[in-house]
Amino acid sequence: MAPARVRAAGETYNKVNFAAPRSFTAALKSDVKETLFPDDPFHDFKGKPLPVKAKKALKYFVPIFEWLPKYSRKLFMHDLLAGITIASLAIPQGISYAKLANIPPLIGLYSSFVPPLIYSVFGSSKHIAVGTVAASSIIIAATIETKVNPAVNPQLYLNLVFTSTLISGVTQLILGVFRLGILVDFLSHSTITGFMGGTATLICLQQLKGILGLKHFTTHTDMVSVIRAIFKNRKEIRWESTVVGVIFLVFLQFTRFVKQKKPKLFWVSAIGPMVVVTSGCVFAYLAHAEKHGIAIVGHLRKGINPSSLKNLDFDPKYISAPIQAGLITAVIALAEGIAIGRSFAIMENEQIDGNKEMIAFGLMNIVGSVTSCYLTTGPFSKTAVNYNAGCKTQMTNVVMSMCMMLTLFFLAPLFSYTPLVALSAIIMSAMLGLIEYDKAYHLYKTDKFDFIICMVAFFGVAFISMDVGLMLSVGLALLRALLYVARPQSSKLGNISDTNLYRDVEQYPGAIGIPKTLILQLGSPIYFANSGYLRERILRWVRDEKANKASQGDDVEYVLLDLGGVTSIDITGVETLVEICRSLEVKEIKVVIVNPRLEVMEKLTVTHFIDKIGKERVFLSIEDAIEGCKFSLTHPKDFGSEKC
Amino acid sequence: MAPARVRAAGETYNKVNFAAPRSFTAALKSDVKETLFPDDPFHDFKGKPLPVKAKKALKYFVPIFEWLPKYSRKLFMHDLLAGITIASLAIPQGISYAKLANIPPLIGLYSSFVPPLIYSVFGSSKHIAVGTVAASSIIIAATIETKVNPAVNPQLYLNLVFTSTLISGVTQLILGVFRLGILVDFLSHSTITGFMGGTATLICLQQLKGILGLKHFTTHTDMVSVIRAIFKNRKEIRWESTVVGVIFLVFLQFTRFVKQKKPKLFWVSAIGPMVVVTSGCVFAYLAHAEKHGIAIVGHLRKGINPSSLKNLDFDPKYISAPIQAGLITAVIALAEGIAIGRSFAIMENEQIDGNKEMIAFGLMNIVGSVTSCYLTTGPFSKTAVNYNAGCKTQMTNVVMSMCMMLTLFFLAPLFSYTPLVALSAIIMSAMLGLIEYDKAYHLYKTDKFDFIICMVAFFGVAFISMDVGLMLSVGLALLRALLYVARPQSSKLGNISDTNLYRDVEQYPGAIGIPKTLILQLGSPIYFANSGYLRERILRWVRDEKANKASQGDDVEYVLLDLGGVTSIDITGVETLVEICRSLEVKEIKVVIVNPRLEVMEKLTVTHFIDKIGKERVFLSIEDAIEGCKFSLTHPKDFGSEKC
Repeated sequence: MAPARVRAAGETYNKVNFAAPRSFTAALKSDVKETLFPDDPFHDFKGKPLPVKAKKALKYFVPIFEWLPKYSRKLFMHDLLAGITIASLAIPQGISYAKLANIPPLIGLYSSFVPPLIYSVFGSSKHIAVGTVAASSIIIAATIETKVNPAVNPQLYLNLVFTSTLISGVTQLILGVFRLGILVDFLSHSTITGFMGGTATLICLQQLKGILGLKHFTTHTDMVSVIRAIFKNRKEIRWESTVVGVIFLVFLQFTRFVKQKKPKLFWVSAIGPMVVVTSGCVFAYLAHAEKHGIAIVGHLRKGINPSSLKNLDFDPKYISAPIQAGLITAVIALAEGIAIGRSFAIMENEQIDGNKEMIAFGLMNIVGSVTSCYLTTGPFSKTAVNYNAGCKTQMTNVVMSMCMMLTLFFLAPLFSYTPLVALSAIIMSAMLGLIEYDKAYHLYKTDKFDFIICMVAFFGVAFISMDVGLMLSVGLALLRALLYVARPQSSKLGNISDTNLYRDVEQYPGAIGIPKTLILQLGSPIYFANSGYLRERILRWVRDEKANKASQGDDVEYVLLDLGGVTSIDITGVETLVEICRSLEVKEIKVVIVNPRLEVMEKLTVTHFIDKIGKERVFLSIEDAIEGCKFSLTHPKDFGSEKC
Repeated sequence: MAPARVRAAGETYNKVNFAAPRSFTAALKSDVKETLFPDDPFHDFKGKPLPVKAKKALKYFVPIFEWLPKYSRKLFMHDLLAGITIASLAIPQGISYAKLANIPPLIGLYSSFVPPLIYSVFGSSKHIAVGTVAASSIIIAATIETKVNPAVNPQLYLNLVFTSTLISGVTQLILGVFRLGILVDFLSHSTITGFMGGTATLICLQQLKGILGLKHFTTHTDMVSVIRAIFKNRKEIRWESTVVGVIFLVFLQFTRFVKQKKPKLFWVSAIGPMVVVTSGCVFAYLAHAEKHGIAIVGHLRKGINPSSLKNLDFDPKYISAPIQAGLITAVIALAEGIAIGRSFAIMENEQIDGNKEMIAFGLMNIVGSVTSCYLTTGPFSKTAVNYNAGCKTQMTNVVMSMCMMLTLFFLAPLFSYTPLVALSAIIMSAMLGLIEYDKAYHLYKTDKFDFIICMVAFFGVAFISMDVGLMLSVGLALLRALLYVARPQSSKLGNISDTNLYRDVEQYPGAIGIPKTLILQLGSPIYFANSGYLRERILRWVRDEKANKASQGDDVEYVLLDLGGVTSIDITGVETLVEICRSLEVKEIKVVIVNPRLEVMEKLTVTHFIDKIGKERVFLSIEDAIEGCKFSLTHPKDFGSEKC
C-alpha cells in the first residue's frame, strides 16, 4: 500500500475519482440493460399510475392500438392505393417464389393473405409489405430436398415446409422475447450484400430452366452443377419458350429502367409483373401454349387458406432438415425484414424496434404455418413499391390481404394459365436487381477487408452452398472483429504547440514530445486476447523512444498511459499492466496512469492495482500528469517509491 | 460537398489534420506488422552491413550462438547444480507421466534426453527445463485410446503416440514460423486455471487406481466414469498398496509444505520424488513387494534412444486420433511452456519472444518424435525447480540431458523395481499443486465473468471431456470478447469546473453540462457488430438529455461525438454515423465530430463522410467544438448547412 500523505503541490491537480466500485448486481444490471435493452423501451413508463402503464404497455406490444384510433379516411385513401398496388405484385411473386420452393403455387398466394393481417396488428413498421422472399424460398427447397424429393412425395415435402415455417416463427419469437436482436447485428452489410448477390446469381441461373423450357434439371444449388445441368439437357431447349421468356424479361427490365430514370413512374415497374402474368395467361389461353412447349402453372383451387395444423410433421427421421432450414431462414428473414424496415424508417426519421419486429415476424410465421402459408418477411421489392405507392400505415397490409382474399375466392382459376416462363422472367428480373455491383465496388474502394467478406459470401454461395457461404462470411467477419480487439491501436502522443492538447504524433507531425516522458494512448478494451500484444507493443514504444531520445541526449523516465479510450479491462489485462510496470521499473522508468474510465477504475481498484502503483501516480489529465512528473523530479520520494 | 470558404472565427481553432488516407498497401503493411510482428524483432538489423546482419540473424534464430561465446566456468558451476537437481526430478516424472500416457516408462526417460539438447540450441529462455507434462500425457492417452487399446496392441498405440508428437512439433513450428502466437493469446488465464484444475482433479482420481492397487479400471476420463470404476472394482483394493501410497503421498505433501514455508529449502521438495522412487525401489526389492500386491514398473532396457522414424504411422484408419491429439496438445503445451518461460523472464526483467519459443518447441518435438520421445514442453514444476536451483543459462538442459544419458546407460535396470504406487503418489502430489483454489477465489472476487469461464473449463473437463471443456471455455471467452466489442461503453461528458477537462458525468458527478449541447464519448472500434447498438444508444442519450434539458428550460441543439477513443471504424459504422446525423437533423440537432484518430479519419474521408457533414464540423478538441457551436449560433449559415 502506498502511504497516505499530504503532498504540497498535489493540491493543484484535478482530483481523480477513486470511488468504491459498484456492487456486482449493480454492474450486472447495467450490463444486461446495455446488452438487451439498449433503446430503453420502457423509459416512458416510469412513475406513471398502473392503468396508464397498462394502456401504454398494450400500445407498446400491440402497435395497432397505437395507430388505429388515430386512423382517418384520408389516410385510408393512400393506404388503399398502395395496398392494391402491392397486391398486384403479390400474386405473381407469390406464385413464382412458391415455384422456387417447389411447393404448390397456391401456397404462395395463401402466404399473402394471413401473415399480412397478423403483421398489421403486431408490426411497428408503416412501410413493410409482408410477403414471401426468393432467398428463403430457395434455402428451404435446398435443405428439405436433402431429405425428401418433392417430385416423389410432394405432400410430405410440403408438410416439412410448414414445419420449417413453424420453427422459423418460434425462433423469431424467442429471439424477440429474449431481445436477442444482437444476433442479427452480426450479419454485416458486406455479408448481406455478398450473400444476396450470390443467391441472386444462382436463382437467375436456375430460372434458365423455365426460360429455356427444360424438363430435367438438377436439385443442387451450386453454380457448377446448375451450369452443367443446362449443358447436359441442352437438347430439351424449346425455342418457343425461350423467345417468350426473353421478351418478358426485356419488358420487365425496361420497366425497371423507366423507374430508375423517372422515380415518379415507379408504378410502371410495380405493375410490370402483373402485366406479364396477365398477358402470359391470355397468350397461353389463346395460343394453347402447352402444346407448343410452354408449360403453365396448372389447376388452382378456389377458396382461402385451409388449416395445416395436422400437416405439421415432427418425424425424427426428417426433422433435422426443417430445423436447419427453419433456423437459417429465421435469421435471414429477420435480417432482411428488419434492415428494410429500418432503412425506410430512417428516411422518414422514425424509429423501429428490432426486437418488437422479431416478435411480429415470429407470430405471423407461427400463425402462417398452421394456415397453409410458408415463410414470410418484409421483402425489399414489395416494401419499396409500398413506400413509393404512398403507404401511410400498416393498413396497406390489410388492404393487400383483402385483395388476396378476393383473388383466392374468385380469380384463382384464371391464373392457372400463367406460363412458367413468365414466372421465371419475373424472378430473374427481380434477382438482377439484387446483384449490387456498385455496392461491391464501393466496398472495394473504401474497405478491402469488407470487400473480401462480401466476396467470400458471394463465391461461397455461388460455388459451395448457401449456408456454407453465409457461415464462411460471418466467420470471417467475426475473425475480423476479434482481430480488432486483439490488435488495438496504440499511439504516441505529443503536445500541439500553444495548446494543452496531446495528439498522435503520426497524425499531427507538428506535435512535440515532452522531455524525459513518453505519452502513450491506448484504446479498446484491454483483456486476455490483446494483453500479450499490448505488453509487447508498449515495451517496443519504450525501446524506440529511448533510442530516439538518446540521440537527443535525453532519456525516458516516465511512461504516461492515457487510458481515456479504454472501455474495459479484465483480470489478464490488469496482470499485464502489473507486468509492464515491473519490466519498466527495472529500467528505472515509472508508469503513470491517466484518466481511467469508470469501469476500468473499478477493476483497477478491486484488483489493488491502484494501491500497488500508488494513488499519486494516477492523474485526470495528461497535463496534470506531466506536472506531477516534473514535481516528482525534485521530490522523488513522494512519487510511487513502492515497487509493484 | 460543403463549400470551401474562409471563416472569420475559424482561424482560432486548432487545425484538424484532414490528410489524404494512406494507400491500401501501406495500411495493410502496417496491419500485418502489428498483427504478426508486434515486437518488431528485426529492429536491430536496420542499416547494418550484410555480414553483421547475417551474424545477428544467426544469433537471433539460434540463441546458443548468443550465449555460448560468453559462457564461463562460474556460470557452469551454477548450471551443473541446477541440471543435476532437475535430472533427479526428471527420472520419476518421466516414468510417471509415461505411465499416465499408457506408454512404456522408458519412453519417458528418453524424452528427457534428446529434446533438452535441442532446446538448449534453439530455446531463448534461460529458465525452462524441458520435460513431459501430465496434462498433455493424459490428453494423448484419452484421444488415441478411442482408436487403439494400448493393452491389446501396445506397439501400434505407441506408434500413434510418436505420430501425434510429430504432428504437435510440426504444428508448433508452423505457428512459430508464421508468427501465429496470437492463437495462444486466446487461451486466457482464467481458462488455463480452470482447465489445469479440472485436469488435475481427474488425474488425481485416476491415480487412485495405482494407490489402491486396482487391476481393472476405465479408459474414460470423466469424473463420473472414474468414480464409478473405483466403486465397481472396490473388491480389488489391496491394503498393502494403499498404506504405502498414503505414506508416500503424505511425505511428498510434507516436502511441498516445507518449501512453501521456507522457500530456501526448495531442494527438499525437489528431491522428494527421487527419494520416493529410490526408497520405493529398495523397499520393493527387499520386501518382494510384487508378491504382496504392489505392482512394479518392470524390466527397463539399458541404452539410449533408438530411432523411431519407422514407427511413425500415417494409416488413414487411425490418423484422425493422432491429428486431434497432436493439435490440441501442441497448443496446450505451447501455452504452458510460453506462459511459464515468460513468467520467469519477467521476474528477471528479461524478454521472451513467444514465436521463437514456438519454433524451439516445434523443433524439439519433431526431433523427439523420430528418437523415441513423446511430447515435451517447459513444465511448470521442473522449470520452477530449475529456477530455484539457480540456473543461469540453457546449459542446465544439457547437464540434465547428460545425467539422463548416464542413467539410461547404467542405472535404468535399477529403476525397474519402482512400485507403481510410488509413481501414483508422485503424480497425485504434483496434481494437487495445480488446483489453484486461491486463484479461482481471486477471480470470483474481482471478475465474475472470468470466474464463470474458469468454472466452465473446470467442470467441462471434469464431467464431459478435456477437449469439450477447453472448447466451451474458450468459446465463452470469445463470446465475451465479442460482447465487449458489441456493446462498447459510451458516456456523457461534462466540464470539470475551472478546467478545460471534460469527463464522464457518472464518474465525476461534479462535471457540469454545457447549454444546448450534449457531449458523448464513444470508445472501442465502431463496426457492424456494434453500430446498431450505438445508434440506439446515442439516440437514447439524446432523448434523455432533451428531457433533462427541457426541465431546465434548455434544449439540445448540438451533439458532440468525441471519437478520441474510437480505434477504428468500418463501412457499416460510417453508414451508422450518417444515419445518426440524419435522424438528429430532423430534430434540428447538429452532429459535431471531435478528434477522430488517424485510422478513423482515413475511413471518414474515403467514404466522403467528412464532405457530407462539412469540415467546419470537425474539431480537434471538445473545447474548440463548443466554441465553434457558440459561434455558429450567430452565424448559422457557416456551420454545416448541408444535409447529410
